[in-house]
Amino acid sequence: MEMKSKILNDPVYGFINVPYGLLFDLTEHPYFQRLRRIKQVSLTHYVYPGALHTRFHHALGALHLMQQAVEVLRGKGAPITDEEAEAVCAAILLHDIGHGPFSHTLEHTLINVSHEVLSELFMEKLDEEFNGRLGLARAIFRDEYHKKFLHQLVSGQLDMDRMDYLNRDSYFTGVHEGVIGYDRIIKMLAVYDDELVVEEKGIYSVEKFLIARRLMYWQVYLHKTVLSAEQMLVKAMQRAKVLAHAGRHLDAPRPLAFFLHNDISAGQFLTDRDALLANFALLDDYDITSGLKAWAFADDPVLAFLSDCILNRRLFKLELSNEPFEESYTAGIRHHVERWNPFGPEALEYLLFQGSETNSAYDVSKEEIKILHKNGKVLPMSLTADYGIQSRLVTKYYLCYPKQAVRV
Amino acid sequence: MEMKSKILNDPVYGFINVPYGLLFDLTEHPYFQRLRRIKQVSLTHYVYPGALHTRFHHALGALHLMQQAVEVLRGKGAPITDEEAEAVCAAILLHDIGHGPFSHTLEHTLINVSHEVLSELFMEKLDEEFNGRLGLARAIFRDEYHKKFLHQLVSGQLDMDRMDYLNRDSYFTGVHEGVIGYDRIIKMLAVYDDELVVEEKGIYSVEKFLIARRLMYWQVYLHKTVLSAEQMLVKAMQRAKVLAHAGRHLDAPRPLAFFLHNDISAGQFLTDRDALLANFALLDDYDITSGLKAWAFADDPVLAFLSDCILNRRLFKLELSNEPFEESYTAGIRHHVERWNPFGPEALEYLLFQGSETNSAYDVSKEEIKILHKNGKVLPMSLTADYGIQSRLVTKYYLCYPKQAVRV
Amino acid sequence: MEMKSKILNDPVYGFINVPYGLLFDLTEHPYFQRLRRIKQVSLTHYVYPGALHTRFHHALGALHLMQQAVEVLRGKGAPITDEEAEAVCAAILLHDIGHGPFSHTLEHTLINVSHEVLSELFMEKLDEEFNGRLGLARAIFRDEYHKKFLHQLVSGQLDMDRMDYLNRDSYFTGVHEGVIGYDRIIKMLAVYDDELVVEEKGIYSVEKFLIARRLMYWQVYLHKTVLSAEQMLVKAMQRAKVLAHAGRHLDAPRPLAFFLHNDISAGQFLTDRDALLANFALLDDYDITSGLKAWAFADDPVLAFLSDCILNRRLFKLELSNEPFEESYTAGIRHHVERWNPFGPEALEYLLFQGSETNSAYDVSKEEIKILHKNGKVLPMSLTADYGIQSRLVTKYYLCYPKQAVRV
Amino acid sequence: MEMKSKILNDPVYGFINVPYGLLFDLTEHPYFQRLRRIKQVSLTHYVYPGALHTRFHHALGALHLMQQAVEVLRGKGAPITDEEAEAVCAAILLHDIGHGPFSHTLEHTLINVSHEVLSELFMEKLDEEFNGRLGLARAIFRDEYHKKFLHQLVSGQLDMDRMDYLNRDSYFTGVHEGVIGYDRIIKMLAVYDDELVVEEKGIYSVEKFLIARRLMYWQVYLHKTVLSAEQMLVKAMQRAKVLAHAGRHLDAPRPLAFFLHNDISAGQFLTDRDALLANFALLDDYDITSGLKAWAFADDPVLAFLSDCILNRRLFKLELSNEPFEESYTAGIRHHVERWNPFGPEALEYLLFQGSETNSAYDVSKEEIKILHKNGKVLPMSLTADYGIQSRLVTKYYLCYPKQAVRV
Repeated sequence: MEMKSKILNDPVYGFINVPYGLLFDLTEHPYFQRLRRIKQVSLTHYVYPGALHTRFHHALGALHLMQQAVEVLRGKGAPITDEEAEAVCAAILLHDIGHGPFSHTLEHTLINVSHEVLSELFMEKLDEEFNGRLGLARAIFRDEYHKKFLHQLVSGQLDMDRMDYLNRDSYFTGVHEGVIGYDRIIKMLAVYDDELVVEEKGIYSVEKFLIARRLMYWQVYLHKTVLSAEQMLVKAMQRAKVLAHAGRHLDAPRPLAFFLHNDISAGQFLTDRDALLANFALLDDYDITSGLKAWAFADDPVLAFLSDCILNRRLFKLELSNEPFEESYTAGIRHHVERWNPFGPEALEYLLFQGSETNSAYDVSKEEIKILHKNGKVLPMSLTADYGIQSRLVTKYYLCYPKQAVRV
Repeated sequence: MEMKSKILNDPVYGFINVPYGLLFDLTEHPYFQRLRRIKQVSLTHYVYPGALHTRFHHALGALHLMQQAVEVLRGKGAPITDEEAEAVCAAILLHDIGHGPFSHTLEHTLINVSHEVLSELFMEKLDEEFNGRLGLARAIFRDEYHKKFLHQLVSGQLDMDRMDYLNRDSYFTGVHEGVIGYDRIIKMLAVYDDELVVEEKGIYSVEKFLIARRLMYWQVYLHKTVLSAEQMLVKAMQRAKVLAHAGRHLDAPRPLAFFLHNDISAGQFLTDRDALLANFALLDDYDITSGLKAWAFADDPVLAFLSDCILNRRLFKLELSNEPFEESYTAGIRHHVERWNPFGPEALEYLLFQGSETNSAYDVSKEEIKILHKNGKVLPMSLTADYGIQSRLVTKYYLCYPKQAVRV
Repeated sequence: MEMKSKILNDPVYGFINVPYGLLFDLTEHPYFQRLRRIKQVSLTHYVYPGALHTRFHHALGALHLMQQAVEVLRGKGAPITDEEAEAVCAAILLHDIGHGPFSHTLEHTLINVSHEVLSELFMEKLDEEFNGRLGLARAIFRDEYHKKFLHQLVSGQLDMDRMDYLNRDSYFTGVHEGVIGYDRIIKMLAVYDDELVVEEKGIYSVEKFLIARRLMYWQVYLHKTVLSAEQMLVKAMQRAKVLAHAGRHLDAPRPLAFFLHNDISAGQFLTDRDALLANFALLDDYDITSGLKAWAFADDPVLAFLSDCILNRRLFKLELSNEPFEESYTAGIRHHVERWNPFGPEALEYLLFQGSETNSAYDVSKEEIKILHKNGKVLPMSLTADYGIQSRLVTKYYLCYPKQAVRV
Repeated sequence: MEMKSKILNDPVYGFINVPYGLLFDLTEHPYFQRLRRIKQVSLTHYVYPGALHTRFHHALGALHLMQQAVEVLRGKGAPITDEEAEAVCAAILLHDIGHGPFSHTLEHTLINVSHEVLSELFMEKLDEEFNGRLGLARAIFRDEYHKKFLHQLVSGQLDMDRMDYLNRDSYFTGVHEGVIGYDRIIKMLAVYDDELVVEEKGIYSVEKFLIARRLMYWQVYLHKTVLSAEQMLVKAMQRAKVLAHAGRHLDAPRPLAFFLHNDISAGQFLTDRDALLANFALLDDYDITSGLKAWAFADDPVLAFLSDCILNRRLFKLELSNEPFEESYTAGIRHHVERWNPFGPEALEYLLFQGSETNSAYDVSKEEIKILHKNGKVLPMSLTADYGIQSRLVTKYYLCYPKQAVRV
């Protein structure tokens, strides 16, 4: 893969090389440039103010790691042709191209289509624009290519996506708990029977990686204040949709207005792909925030209240618990909120809500990480580690409502 | 200043303590929260994709350094009362409160009032809201307090503002050239005759600081691609104002629309302070970007062209030179641009423009950095350094136009 | 503790302040300066070439963290007098003062007295020299002071010793697996019923700390190449003692010669404290390495062989296993070594040896880490974590012999 | 250069790859392993306690940068054969192989032969041992190869030696002033007319590099306390040689004793190369420190005093001045020292001494750094920079004597 390339500055890795040709051209495409306007971790910056980095930056970082992985695997004799190398790089570059504004937060609120489906549609469209040069990348992305390890580098328990986002989110939040030895893990990768494996001496780094990921979930991504802000945003968007569907006027940038007024299904995206993608490709974080800024002055007091609270970071209280909340406890809170609620009974569902979040450090029910032992045997991680790998699913329950409602 | 405080995560310094009371309350105010939506370095992220940090983060970082400086100075016997400590902290926290969207880039384009004037107006308004508790902070900010070193910590050749932005911009761009030994410089600060001085053994760190600042100017803030993007933004905004004044309809968020249609002078801000500040306080980066996104589809082809180019990072070529451009050279380029120009002669000024930028490592004509020598004497930096400090003003000239116009 | 202090540079924390007075004077004492000549992690630099940092540096780093911990606890209302603050700082500064050359590696080989006993003796001696000013520090060190949390800061599951060595060993080895959020953990410390507790929201950082410590054990401290080098050093020293006791001449620096020829017990240290401490205080890494350099030319071929191998890093093969080695396997290796052994049967025990190392991430049988929950309850860590804390003792077995013996 | 390689951990660069074959074998040689026992920056750790890194680590770091430089230059079309790549790597690996104990400090004190001459002799010897495989490396090292840029990578104004030591010394001292953008500089290297040049856009990084180097000289390498310690070491060694030549018995490790009793010239090294190199190859920092430890108890009170002071860091006062000291001032100090001197008049020269140190940021009289401009022209750095590059030679004068002599 020695070729002329564009050099980009990255505080996480120093420099990122984007080879001229297909890969560089992809990064210049408006679809990809759009990712500059989508923050990687939604409203996490309300707790970690540095966390303003974007899907654009993440995709380039993942590309950088992919280039390293390809080099390491080739150095160990894994047969990767130049075409495959370019394709797996294109696949990782585009793996998040279908993310909408505020990434996961609004994923099924604004449009009920997953970002993976949208990523595939974007790739299909780009493949047409690039005259079929993305065929192999798409096959790898969909796990339909016989060299399975290529797909695993894009999407698996140790893929370049996770490797980059842990690094990057740690860097921009400043949370050391997510720091991983990504360079060591990548050096320890190998291919065995067309599958990705890790050499035995990398096992501690892998274990560290699994734990780092778990800690980042609870300490950053699902931090209670972040969760509160993001759930409030979901509520504001749901309210806006209800108003829009009821025919109420709402100031909103055009791309947002379109999706507020139209409920688009995955099926519609398939049948009317070009027009819908064109609309979706105009939508980003800026539309949502501009919407909130307008809605803080909306006629509807519930939407105005939620929007103003989000913008000025007057966040609801969020209680987090390892057990589901007792019905009696929830009823007590509801009583308080009802008494305080100045907006009428219809508003209640936007002022008091609950839910749960789950995370597992390592899911043995999925494809396991495989360890290549010095004796040449390959064993799943769960049979190799000194300690049992923690694979239990942890669920946390939350209950969320305005602070002022319960200030007795 | 030992008191209960809110702890904030900061990847640059680890943790930032915001003491509860006046300082914490200021950070909670919508005026201050607005700074979350104003990027510190405008469109620098088009070259350094990590540079998305905000004035909000910078203000908190400068507060952190101020707390350290106060502790160091007190440790050396400088008399700083608790009131003064709080006031100088409030002053640094609010020093950029008057910045508008895209900070310096649009400073005199959208509204012809400097951010310093607006900062003072915001402080005056906040002082009223906080019942006069900002009086001392405002006096320090305006350099009207007898302990001159307090003002110098807020605004001077070695102030906490510069110290933080060099650190922070280095961290988020990843440009090592700006890394400074801020902790060492702060440890070396002292007070002499009510003025801020640096102990002799800190001289190399100060020299490094001056050089780091100069290098950051040319390598980051005035990088030719950044300059191109920012000047294009200025041109787009000028075009939008012309259209607005001509009564043409322009989609724009309300706060932006107000300032597009009304030319507000500093005088008007003084006479109609509350109403105008209220409008200005609603304006941030999101309005500008949303404007551009709408204008990419505007009827006016010049505005549409500029907006689309900025959004999708199709930037004009910018030539940078240490000498003014020869008239004949400029004429040649103009000829090319005219021939290419598909928008009519009126568009030319938006497609070809020139200007200059200047920077000086250290301006001896301003108040000099003072060095406290071991023998007790205080000398200006320019008489102390091993080498002559480089104080020459460097000017660079630029010429900017669409790449496609000159592709012969 | 605001007082004039000596500022030391530390790449790990930036600056370390050593307050003038007792603490500074202790650092100037030859006993403490001796720690400059004792590497923190013995022969770890044979695998991680940067790991040359010393007990001197570690002791100062632990002092730095202790100062932070005291400040945090006082900020939360824990009653710590200035005398107690100084005493707990003195205790951490001196906690390793009794370490001999190559720290743990030779701890019971050269002199059969633990470093803790020797640390206490040094403190006792220093207490006399400093006119009884170390009385409180010694009481804290021996856990005889009623404010138990002070002892826990010096020696416990979350003490400043561990906190510093994980940071420092990570920095100098470059192994990210040991990076911990020490600043966050310290911010979360509190005192409850005179015991050290951690606030609930610090729980992920504590978990990370426990894991980092475990990973550092296997990846660094007990790395198989490190283990091989260190066990070879033990063997060389044992051989030298045998020769010395047999009256054979051995070139050796005087302090080393003394301990080679005399087997000193803990009892003798107590009865003849001053003379023996004086001798011990002259002994450091330099004596051992100089000994090896001389012994590489010794008449005794076994000692010469071992010394030369260590110096030139021609290390024995070390096999590491989670199970004890089968007798038949060991016999096979022994057969090979015997056939190769050019030094006679007496040499065999220096050429083939086995042993085991154990480590536990978190030992619930010891005093547990206590978590202070938001509801005010204090629970042991093992009942608080999302996952069961891994407290199983892991044992690894090793078998070590010259590579060339088994090169079939 | 894609080949199997040994991976080494390095906190500065992450990992260093040493390709198996010639380069790996060189690192395994006792001559190279000896560098593990020679600190890179002598007694600098008396001020910066982390600065214990070795010539061994530095040589490997420089190798790492050389590999990057070769890759960058090849990527830009510079013709570098595999043989040349290996040779230039071998040359940088061995460039410091001739350094003796305490590197520059004792360079002409113990043995009056420069380390460059000794490096060449070691390479010659190794070339014989490796059957002539170092011929090209030696030619490059001596600048006798027609592709001059290869020599410039090893030894020039921007060589990999300087690049690594600035990085490494900054890392281990923690002095930010030395941090350089080495990765950016290397990316900007190119070859023009067989000479090394830097692309224009790397000019700020080069300027930063020159300044960083200058600041490191005064802040670290020539720090007054470091200078004091190192000059005291020189004095101790001179005293030991005088005593040795006078036939006095001195405890000293054998390799040191040899060079104390024999004054070996460069000529003798040439005529009796093998025997003298063998002796020299046994000599390292450990011998010197062990010598000092023994001499602290020597009969000669001057040597005992100096040795004890160095070991326990009771350093002489060192006055540093930009002007030569006035004769009258020096006479006054001499008077004090004479009155205090308890060792007799013969001791005076070891108790009071002066000298000077010089440094230039950038020496235009030497081969200049060449800048490749976008127009294809190559200009020397001094004609390219915005500011005049500071090339003045700065000289500082020192005067050194025991503190206690002048405590009036």
